[in-house]
Amino acid sequence: MSISKSLLDGKEYVIPANLDDKPNIDAFLDKNEGKKVVVIQGLGFVGAVMSLICANALTEEYAVIGVDLPTELSFWKIRSINEGKFPIIASDPKIEQFYQKSREKQNFLATYDSYAYSKADVIIVDVNLDVAKETGFHGELKDYNVDLTPFKKAVAAIGSNCKEDVLVLVETTVPPGTCQKIVLPILKEALLSRGLPEDRFYLGHSYERVMPGPNYVDSIQNFYRVFSGIDDRSASKTEQFLRTIITTEEYPLTQLGNTNATEMAKVLENSYRAMNIAFAVEWSRFAEEAGVNLYEVVNAIRMRPTHKNLMLPGIGVGGYCLTKDPLLASWAKQSLFDSAEGLGQSEVGVSINDKMPLYAYQFMKRELELEDLAGKKVLLLGVSYRSNVGDTRYSPVEPFYNYLIKDNAEVLIHDPYVTFWEEKNMNISQEYDSFFEKDLNIVIISTGHVEYKGCASLMDKLMGCQNLFILDTVGLLSEEEIIKLNSKHTVRVVGRGDIK
Amino acid sequence: MSISKSLLDGKEYVIPANLDDKPNIDAFLDKNEGKKVVVIQGLGFVGAVMSLICANALTEEYAVIGVDLPTELSFWKIRSINEGKFPIIASDPKIEQFYQKSREKQNFLATYDSYAYSKADVIIVDVNLDVAKETGFHGELKDYNVDLTPFKKAVAAIGSNCKEDVLVLVETTVPPGTCQKIVLPILKEALLSRGLPEDRFYLGHSYERVMPGPNYVDSIQNFYRVFSGIDDRSASKTEQFLRTIITTEEYPLTQLGNTNATEMAKVLENSYRAMNIAFAVEWSRFAEEAGVNLYEVVNAIRMRPTHKNLMLPGIGVGGYCLTKDPLLASWAKQSLFDSAEGLGQSEVGVSINDKMPLYAYQFMKRELELEDLAGKKVLLLGVSYRSNVGDTRYSPVEPFYNYLIKDNAEVLIHDPYVTFWEEKNMNISQEYDSFFEKDLNIVIISTGHVEYKGCASLMDKLMGCQNLFILDTVGLLSEEEIIKLNSKHTVRVVGRGDIK
Repeated sequence: MSISKSLLDGKEYVIPANLDDKPNIDAFLDKNEGKKVVVIQGLGFVGAVMSLICANALTEEYAVIGVDLPTELSFWKIRSINEGKFPIIASDPKIEQFYQKSREKQNFLATYDSYAYSKADVIIVDVNLDVAKETGFHGELKDYNVDLTPFKKAVAAIGSNCKEDVLVLVETTVPPGTCQKIVLPILKEALLSRGLPEDRFYLGHSYERVMPGPNYVDSIQNFYRVFSGIDDRSASKTEQFLRTIITTEEYPLTQLGNTNATEMAKVLENSYRAMNIAFAVEWSRFAEEAGVNLYEVVNAIRMRPTHKNLMLPGIGVGGYCLTKDPLLASWAKQSLFDSAEGLGQSEVGVSINDKMPLYAYQFMKRELELEDLAGKKVLLLGVSYRSNVGDTRYSPVEPFYNYLIKDNAEVLIHDPYVTFWEEKNMNISQEYDSFFEKDLNIVIISTGHVEYKGCASLMDKLMGCQNLFILDTVGLLSEEEIIKLNSKHTVRVVGRGDIK
Repeated sequence: MSISKSLLDGKEYVIPANLDDKPNIDAFLDKNEGKKVVVIQGLGFVGAVMSLICANALTEEYAVIGVDLPTELSFWKIRSINEGKFPIIASDPKIEQFYQKSREKQNFLATYDSYAYSKADVIIVDVNLDVAKETGFHGELKDYNVDLTPFKKAVAAIGSNCKEDVLVLVETTVPPGTCQKIVLPILKEALLSRGLPEDRFYLGHSYERVMPGPNYVDSIQNFYRVFSGIDDRSASKTEQFLRTIITTEEYPLTQLGNTNATEMAKVLENSYRAMNIAFAVEWSRFAEEAGVNLYEVVNAIRMRPTHKNLMLPGIGVGGYCLTKDPLLASWAKQSLFDSAEGLGQSEVGVSINDKMPLYAYQFMKRELELEDLAGKKVLLLGVSYRSNVGDTRYSPVEPFYNYLIKDNAEVLIHDPYVTFWEEKNMNISQEYDSFFEKDLNIVIISTGHVEYKGCASLMDKLMGCQNLFILDTVGLLSEEEIIKLNSKHTVRVVGRGDIK
């Protein structure tokens, strides 16, 4: 008997042996008769919220079915949605508003039964497509691989069930070439094997730029989008659909020449960002060595519009996209287009970024002039990879934490947005006053949460301690705060060699 | 007897055996009595124009002396300035206006005699500091070295002659650390050896961002600047001086913490740009392979402010700065700050960029499906590395041209801004009508000059030819032009795999 445990409240759901959910789906569709049916495949950070947006479409009333797998990781989300609890905690109030509206309208159902695909007019693919990285303890990228098997299975499930003239809209970040070389042949073959004409479907690609946080919904609904189709009729079908859910008057759609182009656009965007971060990493090291304040240098240069995208120093890159998309692109170039060379610069970018937590850690050790941290009490402020959000996926704080543990430090952790650190299977305190009474030795500011910024109470607490080593990895402290803290403690900032 | 030949008009000047120019300098200073004396060291692309700006300072009347070496390369410039011909041809009318004003005021002299330094209140260092690159025929970067000897000599000449309390302002792009670790000790030692107190001078650093072309003067006078001093009094002296020549109310000055910081800022700026270009290079190749129009993709992504600095495809990077500054920085990190690692990403960027002309050439050969170009007539449109400017320094068109010659092509060249291609010692036609009557086979658009853009007469000429292969390396042709040309010829564009 398999159990799937809710990350919201720990509630346990037994995964049924009988996976037939037909009666529920049919009853739901009866209630929503006459409405077009949109099925979202995948109820993760993108798919779950995309479901809400479709259930609250701007110019059309859809019946929306979210589909995910009946696995330990995902089954609870399906149940939770149907029971009245949206499975994602977010600071954006629109999430709850949209969810409650869909509850009132009764036009949103979640299921694990692929029977849903047979009822869909539109199927949106929002499943994950991962890169398996082989990484050393110090973050060094040794090798990586892209396994398309789960993605292909998901597409095959659509092909085995979908009705004629369905629009399949891929939103997943895929290796460029995927729609043409992977999705299209799978769907054709599946239709043929069902005795149907192989070309009676539409296939489009349009990536999202979801940004969990206070503008979660807007990052889908009120934002620019590019789109493409496998052919002209698919492109125009895709455009028609997008116009019903996105405010395209304010944020016009951009059609690109083919699906390779839109697929490339997404990974190019993220590779660009990853490369810019890698650039800041290398110059941070240089600034630390040369007694330079890299923040000051970058801010001076950013005055030029041609240099506005320069990034600031930090502890590392996290999240689901920037850590893998450059590799996805490089892999596609070689594996789907038989190119002799990958994207060297993008790969170098990822491997530099993957070492950021190590660099920050080494900087600290150097400045501390300590070989070991045995007996040292360390407070980590923030484990999320982004400020003001509770998202620990691929957080750079994780390897930093691992280094501390390996060096025998005693580590205390606080994060106002994270109650449970999934990757470390650890509860996180929401209250840190008592930490400061415990003879702390080291305080690491590891995430730039607004709760720490310019925070009088945090400053009071720090000033109430004795002889701390304070490492600001994200440039959170102001000049005034640094001067004040430095009068009593030792303050160091990643990317700043000017503070002694 | 050495001769220095003018690049303006071929006039030949004999370099004198007796290098005493004292009488001229003294007479000049007598005429300009009471004025502060500014000496500019180096009369190249920066120093020559910087001299004009100082001679036409905004809030002070200076006597300006430009100093360069009595060599074959430079001596003619000195004479030319004193005879009434400014040694730089530029499309910016302000250059000639400023020069004529200085002639009227008689406050600008050029000399080769370092006696001038002994009269200076301010000495601006605008000499070159080069990176010696070892590059293969295909542009691959094999090794590089920075030889500071000429730069050190220039600084030593100042130290041997300058008077007390002079402001030495370094504008040259130098490896970070140079003012502190190279210039400062040389000046101190020189003063000591002359029996003077070793600290009676001011040393500042403030880099220019000169952009030869229609806004040449404005790129110095009306533009943001950062500055620093070796100590506080040097910083404030530097600031005072800059305020007399730059419109600082509109373009405020930014003081950075130390000279390492301003030196770093300059090479960081240029490394950033070089890296961004390298990024476009790799994705251009991918786009060509995947049938994608990279222009369309980049323009769609640039709608996001966070991605505005994305660059477009091209034939390569040229000019004096982007081709070397990232290496200068990486060298400094290792050689002046004893770092174990250089700036890997910046070095990778340079080595990718150095291969751009080769990539463009390979793309052409692949599309032509030819092994050799024997008997083919090729027209190169543009040899300057920048559009609308005649500047062939490190132009990527040069290696492209070399590949053509090596492949036995017959090459015709046109550039409306270049009459003489210095690097190839070659006269360049200003008139290309007749070229099109000569059974051309291939036309390469190698520089995006405005004269070629949307040019009806160029289109007429191309349409009057038969069966051309046209390669646009810089995205100059519009969609309409491409469609029209492709109906009769074969058009290919670097970074576009969608045109067949």
